[in-house]
Amino acid sequence: MRAVALNCTLKASPAPSSCELLLGQVMEQLRSLGVDGEIHRVADRHIPPGVESDLGDGDEWPPLRRAVLDADILVLGTPIWMGQPSSVCKRVLERMDAFLAETDEQGRLVSYGRVAMVAVVGNEDGAHHVSAELFQALNDVGFTIPAAAVTYWVGEAMGRTDFKDLPETPGTTAGTTRTAAVNAVHLARLLGGDGYPPS
Amino acid sequence: MRAVALNCTLKASPAPSSCELLLGQVMEQLRSLGVDGEIHRVADRHIPPGVESDLGDGDEWPPLRRAVLDADILVLGTPIWMGQPSSVCKRVLERMDAFLAETDEQGRLVSYGRVAMVAVVGNEDGAHHVSAELFQALNDVGFTIPAAAVTYWVGEAMGRTDFKDLPETPGTTAGTTRTAAVNAVHLARLLGGDGYPPS
Amino acid sequence: MRAVALNCTLKASPAPSSCELLLGQVMEQLRSLGVDGEIHRVADRHIPPGVESDLGDGDEWPPLRRAVLDADILVLGTPIWMGQPSSVCKRVLERMDAFLAETDEQGRLVSYGRVAMVAVVGNEDGAHHVSAELFQALNDVGFTIPAAAVTYWVGEAMGRTDFKDLPETPGTTAGTTRTAAVNAVHLARLLGGDGYPPS
Amino acid sequence: MRAVALNCTLKASPAPSSCELLLGQVMEQLRSLGVDGEIHRVADRHIPPGVESDLGDGDEWPPLRRAVLDADILVLGTPIWMGQPSSVCKRVLERMDAFLAETDEQGRLVSYGRVAMVAVVGNEDGAHHVSAELFQALNDVGFTIPAAAVTYWVGEAMGRTDFKDLPETPGTTAGTTRTAAVNAVHLARLLGGDGYPPS
Repeated sequence: MRAVALNCTLKASPAPSSCELLLGQVMEQLRSLGVDGEIHRVADRHIPPGVESDLGDGDEWPPLRRAVLDADILVLGTPIWMGQPSSVCKRVLERMDAFLAETDEQGRLVSYGRVAMVAVVGNEDGAHHVSAELFQALNDVGFTIPAAAVTYWVGEAMGRTDFKDLPETPGTTAGTTRTAAVNAVHLARLLGGDGYPPS
Repeated sequence: MRAVALNCTLKASPAPSSCELLLGQVMEQLRSLGVDGEIHRVADRHIPPGVESDLGDGDEWPPLRRAVLDADILVLGTPIWMGQPSSVCKRVLERMDAFLAETDEQGRLVSYGRVAMVAVVGNEDGAHHVSAELFQALNDVGFTIPAAAVTYWVGEAMGRTDFKDLPETPGTTAGTTRTAAVNAVHLARLLGGDGYPPS
Repeated sequence: MRAVALNCTLKASPAPSSCELLLGQVMEQLRSLGVDGEIHRVADRHIPPGVESDLGDGDEWPPLRRAVLDADILVLGTPIWMGQPSSVCKRVLERMDAFLAETDEQGRLVSYGRVAMVAVVGNEDGAHHVSAELFQALNDVGFTIPAAAVTYWVGEAMGRTDFKDLPETPGTTAGTTRTAAVNAVHLARLLGGDGYPPS
Repeated sequence: MRAVALNCTLKASPAPSSCELLLGQVMEQLRSLGVDGEIHRVADRHIPPGVESDLGDGDEWPPLRRAVLDADILVLGTPIWMGQPSSVCKRVLERMDAFLAETDEQGRLVSYGRVAMVAVVGNEDGAHHVSAELFQALNDVGFTIPAAAVTYWVGEAMGRTDFKDLPETPGTTAGTTRTAAVNAVHLARLLGGDGYPPS
């Protein structure tokens, strides 16, 4: 069983990224449950705007798309800016919008049978709304959402501390990460990559 | 296998309800897939505000809560007002917030193992956002969201036509209802009511 | 110049309310700027669901509606539940939806010329999204939103502390409250209750 | 008095754009009220991700930022994708997040005193939520929102028609555009570019 994580920070490597840290913790939990995978930092690639799977001309989305479809579990990680998902995350969702036109001979989306989970970090406020936006968009394009599918950390109102600068990861976030990983793996095993019957 | 639908229209019976109509179509599809169930109109009951499972003193939430927990599939139906879920729907979600404090001996939410789907109607605009709000809140309190878990109808921008006044249900909405029902039943069968392993 | 604050906590008086505390601080700032007003706790009243200005039969919305229209500044205060505005707050917004049908002889909404600001409290996460929901709904029904029109406090992710149990109000929230009040009063003075010209 | 419109379509020129069409109608109404201005298509420029005013190295945001600050009225136009604002629109908002650190000697945001309005188009569903996201983010960074500050068009649920392919603009959308323009100009005149007093 495989997972792929997309880090939607605004910053290209090697800039430190709180989102990378949280995604690393998610992947560590997934590995402890027998799931392999890697993290891709989206801002390291040239992903032009659009709603097609391949925009040609230097478009670096196709290999990420392939990685998403080769995995059983998608972990979509984003920072919060202005209480909302990052523009990089929105771009990834828009590119996955192409799944809506990519159905098999029985009318099922190419993404069916895959499970999605969400990781969110910010200095303050916004994780619930970000997960709402992501759950809806991911569900629209065919992903299944396990119970308690989001892990997150944000500081107190108007705080300025980054997750990566905390002395240690709070037990609440660590426990939530563990639960999200356990649930995602359980559900991905049940779905078995077969997806849903034709309707 | 059982389903329960909650109709969160603002109007008590016997006022006609577009949401009731759409929920009836969902239940018909579920029945064709071997799932029994009934629709409850929440506005017919006295549901006081709060985040506990039983507020006493005439609180009519406990039997609805029981019906939700006795079912394998929850169908949450709401009209759109101002582009957002109804206050009645929000109240239902708040009352289910109590699930967060109701865990079994292994720390799992009482709601785990249940699947939720969403039905939304409005004169115009708002279905995607309503489903985002509902997916997030339902997921937070332990429900699993199957792929393509929402069916909806809205009219053109600033329209005034009700779903119940359409000459017939558009094929797009009917097909979406069918897919949502098929996916919900498939996922509920896989989950088997057992929910998730302890984390 | 007058302000009215609506406290949309789920709890009736005399239960302590963090939202009441924050609204009290807003009103204190408004008073220091020469604006009088009072706070109404919506849960103390019987406000049935609907989108009309008077539902008859014990409906206690009409005096609140009157208070809103008699004021130059509306301060809408809500707790966060599940990252979203309270059902009580949603009900208030739905009742104000009736403004859309209440226009003067020049087609202008009855609410035009009034300024709205927002106050949000929660144990954790959700203030930005709550303000988004409220700004949109309030704007739809005719209110004008001054710059930086929200004050809020939330704790760290998954926190359990209430605003009312803090040893003191953080300077960040206090400063934001002050700015929101100054801006609301300035804009209300400019609008002068006259509202907008006919279009 | 000047206005600037930012078209946040995903497509670079000269691809036809429904958003361009609606923004053109907004600008026409503004012109009839004595306000000059132009539309910029953001996708024609290289706008890297970030939350600073100038990221150097080919960053084409600075002239757009200048245009925004030189105008009295910002018209932010975006298509709907998946019920949400476009990634291009999110990027513009993130770049304006820098305003939060750019205050005058009295602590007021550089953007204070400017009015923002919103234009949204999509095949279907999402305009209210998009306006909620934009109102909140724009307000956070210092813009004032006039009453009824959004104009939009979306088709019926799951529709595929573009605004630009309609035989004519529906009277509802045209009237809403007119009202939004009248209100924006009135409020911008009242604010007079002076913004708010220090708090």
